[in-house]
Order: sequence, then C-alpha cells, then structure tokens
Amino acid sequence: MSAIGIVGGVGPLAGTDLAQKVFKNTKANKDQDHIDLYLVSCPSMIPDRTEYVLFNGENPAPGIQKAMDKLALCGATAIGISCNTAHSSKILSQIKIPEGTVFVNMIDNCCAYCNEKGFREVGLLGTLGTLRSGIYADYFKNYPSLHLVLPSEEKQEAVQDAIYNKEYGIKALSAVSEKAYNAVSAAVRELAGKGCQAVILGCTELPLVFEKKDSLEKTVLIDPTNILARALIKETAPEKLV
Amino acid sequence: MSAIGIVGGVGPLAGTDLAQKVFKNTKANKDQDHIDLYLVSCPSMIPDRTEYVLFNGENPAPGIQKAMDKLALCGATAIGISCNTAHSSKILSQIKIPEGTVFVNMIDNCCAYCNEKGFREVGLLGTLGTLRSGIYADYFKNYPSLHLVLPSEEKQEAVQDAIYNKEYGIKALSAVSEKAYNAVSAAVRELAGKGCQAVILGCTELPLVFEKKDSLEKTVLIDPTNILARALIKETAPEKLV
Repeated sequence: MSAIGIVGGVGPLAGTDLAQKVFKNTKANKDQDHIDLYLVSCPSMIPDRTEYVLFNGENPAPGIQKAMDKLALCGATAIGISCNTAHSSKILSQIKIPEGTVFVNMIDNCCAYCNEKGFREVGLLGTLGTLRSGIYADYFKNYPSLHLVLPSEEKQEAVQDAIYNKEYGIKALSAVSEKAYNAVSAAVRELAGKGCQAVILGCTELPLVFEKKDSLEKTVLIDPTNILARALIKETAPEKLV
Repeated sequence: MSAIGIVGGVGPLAGTDLAQKVFKNTKANKDQDHIDLYLVSCPSMIPDRTEYVLFNGENPAPGIQKAMDKLALCGATAIGISCNTAHSSKILSQIKIPEGTVFVNMIDNCCAYCNEKGFREVGLLGTLGTLRSGIYADYFKNYPSLHLVLPSEEKQEAVQDAIYNKEYGIKALSAVSEKAYNAVSAAVRELAGKGCQAVILGCTELPLVFEKKDSLEKTVLIDPTNILARALIKETAPEKLV
C-alpha cells in the first residue's frame, strides 16, 4: 500500500506544515479517507544545512539518510523533505533512496509547476543561504524556458531581516509584523517590476506573510511546501488530490 | 536516546496539532534543540473510535497497536495518542505497550493536572460520543477529590452542533463561526454557573474556539492536547519544558 513519508525536523514546524498541507489537499469526508503518512522529525540527527552548503559545516546527509531509512521501514513509499537547503546537490548526491520508495523533489516539482503554467520570468525570495547557495538556479538549468530572477541585494537583506530580525522577524514573533509584511511585499513588487509573472516563496516562513492568498496584485505566489504536498499525493493516491 | 512517538491520524490534524504543541512547549533556540519526534498518521488502519465504543463498530485497537509498534521500531520511548475516545478502557485494555516505551495517557494527565491545581468541580465539553461513553468519568474515579460536571442535554447538543453542523460547524468551516463561538461560550458559562473552576475542552476542535486564551472570564480552560504535549516532554526531556 502507498504511504507518504516526510523527513521533518528541519525545522520541526516546517515538517508539520507539510503534513497539514497534505491533509488540506486531500479529498476526504472522514479520517479514514486520508492517506497514511509518516513523519520523522529528528533535528538531533540533522545539523544546519546552510552551514554545511555555504561554510563546510557538519554534514547533514547521514542524518537525512537515517530519517529516510526509518520512513521506509515504517512503510512509506513516497518521501519528501520539508527543507529548501536540503535539496542542494551537495547534500542529495550523498543520499541513497531506500528500496521501495520514490523521492519526491520539492524544488524540481516547483520548477515543473512553473513550466506547466507557462511562466517565463520567475522570482525567488528566501534566506540569504538559499539565494547565495544557488540551489534553485541549479534546478532551473533543467528548464530552459524558465528564467530565475533574484531581488536586489538591498531587498534580499530586507527579506532576510523580515525572517530573522530578533524584534520584528517572523521567526522571533511566530507572527507577521507590519514591518515584515511591508519588506516582503516590496520585494515581490520589485520582482514584478523586473517582469516576473510568479514569485517562489522559497523559505517556510514566507507563505505566512500572505496567509491564504495565492497572488499579490497580478503576481502569482508559489509556496514550494504546498507544491510538494500535492506532488506527494499525486505519487501515492492521485485520485484523492483536491 | 529519548524520543516522542505520536499515534496520529485520529483525525490527521489532531496528530499534527499535538506535534506542534510539543514544539511550542519546548525550550529551543535552534532546530537542533528540539526533541526527536515520530508521527504515525495511519487512518486507514484505525476505524472510528466512537462507533466502536458506543455501537460495537469495527475494532480500532489492532490498528493502534500497529502504529505503536512502528513508533517503537523508529526509536520512540514515550508514546501518546491524540484522540480522546481512543483512551476508552474498552480500547486501551487490548493494547500491549511496546517494550522500551512508556505510554503517556492524555486523560489521566488531564485529571492529574486538575488535581495538582486544586480544582474540585471540573466541567467537560466534547462530542456526544466522548460525553456519553463516560471515558472521562472512568478516569475521574481515580481522583476522589475531583468532581466531573457535564453540561445540560441542551448545551451538549449545541456544542455537538458547533463542532459538526454542516453550515456553521468548526469541522465544516475549518474556522470558528460566531454561532459556534456563542454556543461553546454559553456551555462554559453554564458550567461556571454550576460551580466549575475549570472546563476541559475534550475535543480537538474546541481549543480553536478560544484561540490562545486559557480562560473565559474566571473559568480556566484546559486543552488536553496541550497537557499531553507537556507530559510527553516531561517524560523525554524535562529540562526542555517551557
């Protein structure tokens, strides 16, 4: 039987957010209509991904491997990771996908979605780690009709602050301050001004800024976690996709 | 190493709600400070608990057992179930707690909490299934100084409607309508009028009515999921409890 596996814990709330997006995208009238799902949220095993990719910190790949092996042991058949930076080829190239499972790649599915929708200029917002490591750029190379557009340095730093600032950042407040909202909206508008039809919210905090909206003015907002949730359903029980 | 295991899927959102309450009650400055946690959300294995307890429907115990065994296989050492009705002795008496794990009982911890706080008259809101099956009453028998108080039949039905009504119920809307808010608040006030110092919100939808408030006027509101989250942390890494 098919079941979804989630490598979570990176961070913990991103893992449960992905699980909830699976539930919300599933056609279900009762508990038993939902797809079986396993979440392994083991941050103790998985050191910081950005530290490793950008600064050669401790290697998170062995911990991600252990989490995947546990998911396969439980019975998962389609596995996703709820972390942008973990999708770096420097990390993924070390992983052996467990027998009997398929790895559902969040960033590749995000690119495929943009491609299907016919977007050409696609903006990216995220942490400085995600932007500077070039993870999205690597995946975009496989989609010649897509062009990745980054915000100006000034807007990149404003978005980083909107996420991390100790006083008004989304992580510190577990909520979206007006200042954070304004910074992220301004970055989306800048990317729209550069011709982007869509902007990828490439950090698990950013979709919170726009609540349930899927566009800002005429710019489509893309939540990679939601794309991954839908791709996991397509892989395990496509007839249940909302 | 200690790790938390959650039998979820009953329903699916109650499982991720419990996981998120574990994260929110954990002292953590970074991902790696969080406690390792496994969630097995397999509704396909676990038929409706209320149907079984009240009407001798299909038995959910074998599925709960399988979920627990998978959690133990992953490495969980303290296991909780995010479902009130699953705590019925008719179900739990069939379960063999896996070797190397401890079962952390949500309802027993809820009673212990009320006892510690010195409450005497404790109200209970929940689905008709939870109230009529007498699950909470059975646990209260072990705490002679606690007295369980139920709402009037009329208020019980109004709360059931606030949860299940197809037009204004919390399950249907995935939000709290004014009508649902008024019905649940009125039930809390009625219990306060009967002398209750505290009211247990014994259904995973009910804490949503009061958002982050932990009291209504002078009546303490108790969220069993939050009590269970804290008890799981105490069992695995007490120094990390917020």
